[in-house]
Amino acid sequence: MWILSAPSGSASMSVVTLALTVLTSSQAILIVWSKRAGKYEYSVTTANFMVETLKCALSLAALTRIWRSEGVTEDNRLNTTLDEVIVFPIPAALYLVKNLLQYYIFAYVDAPGYQILKNLNIISTGVLYRIILKKKLSEIQWAAFILLCAGCTTAQLKSNSDHVLQTPFQGWVMAIVMALLSGFAGVYTEAIIKKRPTRNINVQNFWLYIFGMIFNAAAILVQDFDAVMNKGFFHGYSFITVLMILNHALSGIAVSMVMKYADNIVKVYSTSVAMLLTALVSVFLFGFDLSLAFFLGSTVVSVAVYLHSAGKLQR
Amino acid sequence: MWILSAPSGSASMSVVTLALTVLTSSQAILIVWSKRAGKYEYSVTTANFMVETLKCALSLAALTRIWRSEGVTEDNRLNTTLDEVIVFPIPAALYLVKNLLQYYIFAYVDAPGYQILKNLNIISTGVLYRIILKKKLSEIQWAAFILLCAGCTTAQLKSNSDHVLQTPFQGWVMAIVMALLSGFAGVYTEAIIKKRPTRNINVQNFWLYIFGMIFNAAAILVQDFDAVMNKGFFHGYSFITVLMILNHALSGIAVSMVMKYADNIVKVYSTSVAMLLTALVSVFLFGFDLSLAFFLGSTVVSVAVYLHSAGKLQR
Repeated sequence: MWILSAPSGSASMSVVTLALTVLTSSQAILIVWSKRAGKYEYSVTTANFMVETLKCALSLAALTRIWRSEGVTEDNRLNTTLDEVIVFPIPAALYLVKNLLQYYIFAYVDAPGYQILKNLNIISTGVLYRIILKKKLSEIQWAAFILLCAGCTTAQLKSNSDHVLQTPFQGWVMAIVMALLSGFAGVYTEAIIKKRPTRNINVQNFWLYIFGMIFNAAAILVQDFDAVMNKGFFHGYSFITVLMILNHALSGIAVSMVMKYADNIVKVYSTSVAMLLTALVSVFLFGFDLSLAFFLGSTVVSVAVYLHSAGKLQR
Repeated sequence: MWILSAPSGSASMSVVTLALTVLTSSQAILIVWSKRAGKYEYSVTTANFMVETLKCALSLAALTRIWRSEGVTEDNRLNTTLDEVIVFPIPAALYLVKNLLQYYIFAYVDAPGYQILKNLNIISTGVLYRIILKKKLSEIQWAAFILLCAGCTTAQLKSNSDHVLQTPFQGWVMAIVMALLSGFAGVYTEAIIKKRPTRNINVQNFWLYIFGMIFNAAAILVQDFDAVMNKGFFHGYSFITVLMILNHALSGIAVSMVMKYADNIVKVYSTSVAMLLTALVSVFLFGFDLSLAFFLGSTVVSVAVYLHSAGKLQR
C-alpha cells in the first residue's frame, strides 16, 4: 500500500511514475492474455464500476490509516464543501462523452487506425496543459513532445497503417475532438487536484471516484441492465477479470498521484514508455515480432525522454 | 558561377548549403526522370570521368578569374608540394573500395534494404567526425544526430522494409564497413581541406579532382574498355545525361565548399533534407504516394534540424 501514502521527495515521485509505467504496461499484457485465453463474457460496465468502487475503498483505507496516525485535520477530513466538490464530476463527464464518441468513430476508422489516431492525445494534452494550466515547457521540451508523438506512432506502424491517411473528414474531426476531450479531462483533473495543494490526495481521490461510481452505475443501467438482471452482476468474471480490475484500480490511483505530485506531461511520458515496454514484453511472452518501425519509434521516444529532462536545465 | 567564389560570411555559407540541398534533390529527380524516359545506354564510368573532368575545368576557370583580379599568390597558385598533395588520392581511393564493396553487398541485401542500411552513414560520419577531427557536438546535438538517422530511416520505410532485419551477419558487417569507409572519406576530405585554411579552395578542389579523374580513368579501363573502344566514349549520351553530369559536378563542388566553410555534419543534414525534398517533389512530378511513415520521418528530421541549431546555444 506504499502507493497510497503521499510521496514527498522526488525519489518517491520517481517510484510513483515507475509504478504507473509498470501498471500500464501490465494492463495491456493482461488484455492480450485475456483475449488469448478466450473471449470473456463479463460486462465491461460492471467491471468499470468495480474499478471505481475498489479505488474508492482503497482511498478510504488509506485515509483510515492516516486519521489513526495523524488525527483528523482540515486537510484530511472527508467532509467537503460544494465549492470544492462541484468540479469533481466534470472529468468523469468528459470521459463519458469521449467513450460515447468512441462508438461512432469506428464508422470511419478501423481499430488499428484508431490506435494510431489516439496518439493525437499526446499533442492535445501538451497544448491544453500549456493553455489551461498556463505552465511553460522550454522549446527543447516542446520539440521532445512532438518527437514523443511521432515516435509512438512510428512504433505502432503496421504494413497497412497508411489506410489511416484515407480517414474521411468526419473521422478526423471526431478523432481530434476525442483527443481534446481526453486531454481536457486529464488537464482538468490536474487543475482540480492541484487547486488545493495541502488537501490530502486520498480525499480528493475519494470524491473523484464517487462520481466515477455514479457515472458508471448510470452506464450499467443504460447499457447492461437486462444482462445484469438476467445473468447476475458478476456473470463471466474470472481470475483474469479480477486481476484486470485490480490493475486498473491501482493504475488509476497512480495516475492521480502523478497528477498531484508531477503533471500530465510526466503522465503522458510514462504511459508512452509503458506502451513500448508492453510490446517488448509481448515479444517474450507471446512470440510477437519486433518490426524495424518499432525499433525506430522506440529510439525516437527514448531520445524524447532524454530531451524532456535535458530541456529542463535551460530554463 | 557564384558557387565558385569563396563565400566569406555565414549568409554565403547558407547559400552554399542551400545549393547543396537543391542540387542533391534535383540529382535524385533527374535519376528518376532518366529511368522514366527509358533506360540509357551510356557507360557509368565515362559519365563519372566526365563529372571529375568538368569539376576540374570549373575549378580552373574560377582560378583564372581569381588570378586576373588578385594576382597569383602563395595561397592561390596551382603549384603544390608533395607534402600537400600526397593525401589527396586517399578520399578517392576510399570511395573506390566502397564502390567495389557495393557489388558484393547485393548478395546479402536487396536494393531497398541497402537504401535503409545506407543511413548508417549518418552515424559513422558523426562518430568519425568526433574521433578524427576531434570536434565536439553538444549532447543535444548528438541526440539530434540520432534522430536524423532514425527519421531518415523512418521516412524510407516501405511495407517490406522489415526484410532488412533478416540481413545475414556478413551483410551487416559489409554495411558497417561501407558506412565507415564513406564516413571516413568525408571526414578525411574535410581534414585535408581545412588543414590549410588560407589555401584557395579551387586549388584544393583541382588536386582532389585530378585524382578523381585518374581513378575514374582506371575504372573505364577495367570495366568498360571494350564498350568504349567499339561504340565510342559518348555512346548513349542524351540531354538528360548531360544534365546529370552537370548536376553531379556542381553538387560535388558544393560539397567541397561545405567541407571548407562548414563541416561534414552540415553536409549530412543538407543531404538528408534533400532526400525528403526529393520525395515531396516526386509526389507532384510523378504522382508518388506519401506514406504515414514518410510524414513521421520528416517530422523527426525537421525536429532534428531544429535541435542541431538550438543545441549550439548551450555550448
